[in-house]
Amino acid sequence: MTELSKIIEANQYYSKDFKYGKLPSRPSRKLAILACMDTRLNVEDALGLKTGEAHILRNAGGKATDDAIRSFIISHELLGTEEFIVVNHTDCGLLKFTDEDLSKKLSEKYGAEAASLKFHTFDDLEANVKNQVEKIKSNVFLPKDILVHGFIYDVNNGKLKKVE
Amino acid sequence: MTELSKIIEANQYYSKDFKYGKLPSRPSRKLAILACMDTRLNVEDALGLKTGEAHILRNAGGKATDDAIRSFIISHELLGTEEFIVVNHTDCGLLKFTDEDLSKKLSEKYGAEAASLKFHTFDDLEANVKNQVEKIKSNVFLPKDILVHGFIYDVNNGKLKKVE
Repeated sequence: MTELSKIIEANQYYSKDFKYGKLPSRPSRKLAILACMDTRLNVEDALGLKTGEAHILRNAGGKATDDAIRSFIISHELLGTEEFIVVNHTDCGLLKFTDEDLSKKLSEKYGAEAASLKFHTFDDLEANVKNQVEKIKSNVFLPKDILVHGFIYDVNNGKLKKVE
Repeated sequence: MTELSKIIEANQYYSKDFKYGKLPSRPSRKLAILACMDTRLNVEDALGLKTGEAHILRNAGGKATDDAIRSFIISHELLGTEEFIVVNHTDCGLLKFTDEDLSKKLSEKYGAEAASLKFHTFDDLEANVKNQVEKIKSNVFLPKDILVHGFIYDVNNGKLKKVE
């Protein structure tokens, strides 16, 4: 059975007893979460979020890239969220290589110049969380008083630690 | 009770009986999913994905932006995923406004020029899915033969429809 057919079968099962057909598009808890794409982190379960309660943004590292900021602006401006949460995690892949390492590997593998690509690697997890929170808070197209919190998720024990 | 304290309490409960402490960082099903941040879409549940099986990337619209491509490259190159799935959905916010509408609103509200911002709005859902799949497939830093599938998720009935 291919991955594709497994997904289609799982969705047939999921949609048979579908409970969310009447949910509004605005998150009921007015939350937007930015987290890493990491496979060990189930954002909804780890933060206790039900379908319909929050926007969930995810990318490699849980970084406040221009694209994440775009999503936050849309989330706040058009869909009424008022509180943002950044979740980075221990043992993140972005701690384990540098932009230069990966650019070099890609350039050699694909025969195209990858030096201009940014991968947003970092070397201090706590500082990284603070930087993402600050980047969101200081964005000119988000309210000055928007609530933004930062957390580190420990992949070994499932615990969130607030970064102050 | 604040949203923050609710999240902290939910996480204490989640981590008490934590089952995922030994998961590897490489997704076991070698999948990476790109989906919209929409609150009505629970990616894991709708696609039948368990913690540890896939990378999950999410942004406003489920768009293959430069940042999503960055995440896909890291996912494939460093963490071994081999199959990507794009999930857009019915009733998406990005179908309901234009980049110009939102830029104008932001410029007036914040007194700063927002005209250069891109929000990646679109007006044809099926064409949008095809475009995202094509954008990923044609990226020079991903393998030519990488598997990329596109789906539309129906927020009213929970069903995934494959876009061919």
